[in-house]
Amino acid sequence: MNTKNNKAGIEEPIDLKNLDLPADLKKMTYRQCDILCRQIREELIKTVSNNGGHLSSNLGTVELTVAIHRIFDSPEDKIIFDVGHQAYTHKILTGRYKKFSTLRKKGGLSGFCKPCESVHDPVITGHSSTAVSSAFGIASAMKIQGSKNYAVAVVGDGAFTGGISYEGLNNAGKSDVNLIIILNINEMSISKNVGGMAKYLSTLRYNDHYISAKDAVRSTLDKIPVVGKPVKGTLKNTKDALRNIVLRRTIFEDLGFEYVGPVDGHNIKELESGLRAAKSKRRPVVVAVYTVKGKGYAPAEKNPGGYHGISAFEIETGNPDVIVEDSFSNIFGKELVALAKQDKRIYAVTAAMKYGTGLQYFSKELPDRFYDVGIAEEHAVTFCGGLASMGMTPVFAVYSTFLQRCYDQIIHDLSIGEIHTVICVDRAGIVGDDGETHNGIFDVPMLTSVPNVSIYSPSSYGELKLCLNAALYKENRIAVVRYPKGNDTTEVSELRKTTSYIYKNNNSKILLITYGRLYSNLLKAADILADSGVQCDILKLINIFPINARVKKIIKNYDKVFFFEESYYNGSVSQKLAAEFDNVIPLAINKYVKQETVEQAFAELGFTAGQMAETVAGMI
Amino acid sequence: MNTKNNKAGIEEPIDLKNLDLPADLKKMTYRQCDILCRQIREELIKTVSNNGGHLSSNLGTVELTVAIHRIFDSPEDKIIFDVGHQAYTHKILTGRYKKFSTLRKKGGLSGFCKPCESVHDPVITGHSSTAVSSAFGIASAMKIQGSKNYAVAVVGDGAFTGGISYEGLNNAGKSDVNLIIILNINEMSISKNVGGMAKYLSTLRYNDHYISAKDAVRSTLDKIPVVGKPVKGTLKNTKDALRNIVLRRTIFEDLGFEYVGPVDGHNIKELESGLRAAKSKRRPVVVAVYTVKGKGYAPAEKNPGGYHGISAFEIETGNPDVIVEDSFSNIFGKELVALAKQDKRIYAVTAAMKYGTGLQYFSKELPDRFYDVGIAEEHAVTFCGGLASMGMTPVFAVYSTFLQRCYDQIIHDLSIGEIHTVICVDRAGIVGDDGETHNGIFDVPMLTSVPNVSIYSPSSYGELKLCLNAALYKENRIAVVRYPKGNDTTEVSELRKTTSYIYKNNNSKILLITYGRLYSNLLKAADILADSGVQCDILKLINIFPINARVKKIIKNYDKVFFFEESYYNGSVSQKLAAEFDNVIPLAINKYVKQETVEQAFAELGFTAGQMAETVAGMI
Repeated sequence: MNTKNNKAGIEEPIDLKNLDLPADLKKMTYRQCDILCRQIREELIKTVSNNGGHLSSNLGTVELTVAIHRIFDSPEDKIIFDVGHQAYTHKILTGRYKKFSTLRKKGGLSGFCKPCESVHDPVITGHSSTAVSSAFGIASAMKIQGSKNYAVAVVGDGAFTGGISYEGLNNAGKSDVNLIIILNINEMSISKNVGGMAKYLSTLRYNDHYISAKDAVRSTLDKIPVVGKPVKGTLKNTKDALRNIVLRRTIFEDLGFEYVGPVDGHNIKELESGLRAAKSKRRPVVVAVYTVKGKGYAPAEKNPGGYHGISAFEIETGNPDVIVEDSFSNIFGKELVALAKQDKRIYAVTAAMKYGTGLQYFSKELPDRFYDVGIAEEHAVTFCGGLASMGMTPVFAVYSTFLQRCYDQIIHDLSIGEIHTVICVDRAGIVGDDGETHNGIFDVPMLTSVPNVSIYSPSSYGELKLCLNAALYKENRIAVVRYPKGNDTTEVSELRKTTSYIYKNNNSKILLITYGRLYSNLLKAADILADSGVQCDILKLINIFPINARVKKIIKNYDKVFFFEESYYNGSVSQKLAAEFDNVIPLAINKYVKQETVEQAFAELGFTAGQMAETVAGMI
Repeated sequence: MNTKNNKAGIEEPIDLKNLDLPADLKKMTYRQCDILCRQIREELIKTVSNNGGHLSSNLGTVELTVAIHRIFDSPEDKIIFDVGHQAYTHKILTGRYKKFSTLRKKGGLSGFCKPCESVHDPVITGHSSTAVSSAFGIASAMKIQGSKNYAVAVVGDGAFTGGISYEGLNNAGKSDVNLIIILNINEMSISKNVGGMAKYLSTLRYNDHYISAKDAVRSTLDKIPVVGKPVKGTLKNTKDALRNIVLRRTIFEDLGFEYVGPVDGHNIKELESGLRAAKSKRRPVVVAVYTVKGKGYAPAEKNPGGYHGISAFEIETGNPDVIVEDSFSNIFGKELVALAKQDKRIYAVTAAMKYGTGLQYFSKELPDRFYDVGIAEEHAVTFCGGLASMGMTPVFAVYSTFLQRCYDQIIHDLSIGEIHTVICVDRAGIVGDDGETHNGIFDVPMLTSVPNVSIYSPSSYGELKLCLNAALYKENRIAVVRYPKGNDTTEVSELRKTTSYIYKNNNSKILLITYGRLYSNLLKAADILADSGVQCDILKLINIFPINARVKKIIKNYDKVFFFEESYYNGSVSQKLAAEFDNVIPLAINKYVKQETVEQAFAELGFTAGQMAETVAGMI
C-alpha cells in the first residue's frame, strides 16, 4: 500500500479560517495536517466550553475525519456519521467553520447531522445505530444509478450494541455495493461500553499484527508436515478446518464483509492507507479504527464519560460553569436505590445511559440487580418482560426519545400479557439544545395508544418520589413515570400526598388543566388572568392516563376547559379528553421543535405564562 | 458424554392420548420416542390440515422438542419458543393434546405461546426474535432467586436476522446465568433466509467434525515444529495467533457464549447429548441444531415456504381447501411491478415476507431493485431513508403488526427530514386466527401520531391501485397505503377516480363514516336503517389522514356523525375527529381481540351490519 504523501503542501501559515475546505485538505502535507488538527481541537474545546455539546467523541475523531475527507470526495461520496454527535470536525471541514460558534444555538448549527444544513450531511443522524442501514440504502441506490462513488458510515463501537446496526450488517454483507463501514473503537459508548461485542472488539485491538499473522499462517499451513498422530480424522481434515478457521476470522468477515484493521485512529498516514485499502475492494468493507475519546484535552481524556455530552465549562480546569446538584434523574436514581434496598424484586435497567438516567447510584450499590444492556432499547423492554415473568419488578429508565425504539416490545412483551413493569421516561418534553431529533414529545401519544398503560407525570421532586412509589406498588400493569430534563423549576411548594391530581376550585366556570413542568407557568397565567378579572379554576393531573373518572366529573362542570400540554398534539391526552368532552380545548405541540433553549421553545409554542393567559383571554 | 439411554421404557403400545405428558417422556426408550414422534407428526398434519396454521416449522422441531422435555424439567426450567409458531409439539407434550383440535379456533388453543394457556409457556411469543431477551431476563431473575434452573430459548435462524436477537446475545454473552440458546437452523425464515448471518450459519453446518477438529488442532499446535521460515515475526507469534484464532471460533464464542454443535436435530440421542453438554456448562451456551423444515410430510419438505403458515388443506395431495386467486397482497404486488417497470426509481423492500406481501412478482421480475432485508423492520425503514436520500422511491411492504417495530425509525429517518417513502401496510385490521399478537389495530394510532404522514385505506382492489399511485406520485413525504388480510369482499362495485373520499348525500342529518373493509357492512347498515325509516348519509374516507378540509366541512352539516373504525380507539382517526367536532361519535376497538375468525371478531366488536344499524338507531 502506498502510504507516501507526495503533496507539496499549501501556503503557510496554516490557519483554519483562511482555508478553502474541504478542497485544501487534499493539498496538505502530513505536517500541515497535524497543525490543522491542533487548530480544530482548539476550536472544538473553545466552542463546546461556551455552548455545551459533545466533546470527548469529537476530540477522538479529528484525525479520522481529516483522513476521510482527504481520501473520499464529499458530497459525491456520502459520509454518514452515526448518531451525528461526533461530526463537529466534519462540520468544520465542510464549510461550516464560520458558523461553528453558533453550535446548538437557536438558528445555529445543529449538534447532529442534517441535510438541510449542508450537502455534506446525506441523512439526519441523531439517534444511534442507523448509519449502516442508511449507508447501505445510499450505496444500493448508487449501484443502480451506475455511480462509482462510495457510501461511508462512521460508527462507534457503542452503536454496535444496537440491533439495527447488526440488521444492517447482516443485510449488506452479502451485497456488492461500494459500502465502507468505519468502526471507530474507543471502548466507550456513553457509559462504559457493554456486552460481548465490545469485549470482542477490544480483543481485535491487541491483535496488532493481524494481517501479517494471517499471511504467515496461510503460508505455514501449506508447509505443515504430518506431525504426531491426528486425534481424529486425517490431517487433511485438520488442515482444511484450520484453513477455514484462519481465513474467515473476524465477525465482519463471517457476515460477508472484507476487513481492514486495526488502524491507529490518530495517525493520518496509517488512516489513509487503511481507507485506501478499503476503497480498493469495491464491495462492503469494515475498517476497524482505534481512537482515544477526549484525545488532546486532559480532563476529557481522563473522564471521557463526563465530557460526553456536557454543558458549558471553564477550559483551564474543565469545571462546569453551572453546577446542578439535583435533577429529576438523580432524585429518581437515589430514590430507586432506597426502595430497592427494601425490596429485592426491584431491578434497574438502562440502555447505555447509566449516568444520564441517574442509575449510577444503583449500579454502585446494588450491582447484582443493575443491568446496562447497551444501546438496545428493544431488548431492554423484552428483558424486563422476562424478569417480570419471574415475579421481579424491573424498572427501565430511558430517555423519551429513545423509548420510541420499543413500541412493539411494549405492546408484545408487556401490554398483551399485562406485565407489571415500571418505565421511567427521562427527558420527557422539550429538551432544548439537541433539537427535533431529541425532544420527548412522542412518548405520550405512543404510550396512550397501548392498552394496559398507566402514566404519571410529576412536576416536582416530591411528586416524582410519590409517583415512583405508586408505579411500583399501586399499579400491576405497565406503569410509566415521565419527567423532564434537568431540575425542578417549580416555584410553588405544595406537595400533597396524592398521585391523582391537584384541583383548585374557586367556583369559576373556566378550568385550566395541565401536567408536569408546565404547571408553574399555568399558575402564573392564572394569576395574570385573575389580575385582569378572569378567575380560573386549576386542575393539575399527576396520573395523566387513563383519565380518572373523578377528573371527568370535574370537567363536566365547566363552560370552557383549556388544556395546555407539553406533548405532540396528535395522540395527546388533551386530544383524547377533547374527543370525550365538547368543552375541552386542547393546546399541545403541533410541529417538530428545533434546537433552542427550553425557554425559547416554550415562547415559540405559546407556553409562557403571559401567552397562556393571552390564549385563554382571547377564547372566552 | 454419556449418550446411552438406559431407560426401561413404558408400557406399550405407545399412544399419545394415553400418555402422562411430559412426565412419561423421561421414561421412554429411544424406540418409543420414535413412535411418539411419528404420532405427533400425524397429529400435526391432521390438525393443521383442518384448522390451518404453521406446519413446516412444527414438523421440523418434533424430535428437538421431545429431547428438550426429556433433558429439562418444565415448568421449573423455562422453555421459550421464539415466535411461538413452532411450539405445537411443545403444546402436545405439555397437557394440551386433548385440546389440540381447537388450535387457532375461537376459545381454543392459540397458535402461539401464552402464559394464560399453560404454565409451560413462560412468556408470550408471537413476534420474532424476542426469545433471547426474554430468556436472559428469566435466567437473570433465577440467579438472584438462587435457583439452579435453566432458561432455554429455542430460536430459528430466521429470527437471528432480527436485531433484538443480537442485542440479547450481546448483553447475555458476558453474564454467568443458566441460559441456553438452541439455535434451530433450517436455512429458512419465512421466505428463504437472507443475509450474512444465514450464510455463516450454513457454513457451520458442514463443519461436521467441528468439535473434534478443534481438539485436533489444539493438540497439533503443541507439536508444530519449526517448519520453513515464518513469513513475519517468530513462529511463536504465529502459533499464538493460530491458537487465538482456533480457540475462539464461532460468532457466539466471540460474543462470550459457549458453543455446542452442530447437532442433528432429528436424532434424539444426539440432541440429548448436545443438550446435556449445554446444561453442564452452567453459563450462557449456544447449541446449534440442524433441522429440516416440513420433515416427514413430503409436500411440506418439498415446499416449506408454501407450508409455513397455511389455510386448511387436503392431506393426501397437500392441496389447499380453498384456492384464493387474488388478495390485496397479490394485487398490490402485481401493480407495483407494472409501475416499477415504468419508473426506475421504485425499489421494493420486505422484511422476510416476500410471499406474504405479494412481492414475489417484483423479486422475480426486477431483482436488482428488490430487497429482502431479513426479519429486520427497523433496518428496512432506515434503509428506505437512505435510498430515498438518493432520489429513489422505496416501497416497504410490511404487516401492520410488524410495522410496530419501526416507530422510531419512521420518526427519525423519514418524518423529521420529510422523506418520500411509501409504506404498504398489509394485514391492517383484524387478522383472525392469529389473535391478539397479530391483529393490525395499532398502525393508525402509531402513524397518525407522527408528523408528515399521509394514510390511504382502500376498500377494494381498484382503490388499492389508485392509492398506490397517489402514494407514489401525489405525495412527497411518508405515504402509507393500508389494506386488510385476504381478499376484496366489497359487494358493491363503484370505483370512482378519487383517493380522497366517497360521499353519499341524501340530505339526512345523520352521517355514517368509515373506511377500508368496514364500508360493505356500513352500506348494509344504512339499508337496514333506511328500511326502518332512518335515512343516513354516508362518507367513506380513502385518504383517511390527515383529515381533509372538505371532509371537515361536510361533517359540520350534521346533527350526529357515527364513525365506525377498525382500529384501536386511543389514537384512532375517529377519536381525532371527535376532538375537533362535537357531533362525531367514535366507534372503534377498545381491547385486544383474541383469535377467532374475522367475522366472529366483527360480531364481537359490533361491526356487523345489523349491529351498526342497531347502534345508530339506539343513539338517535
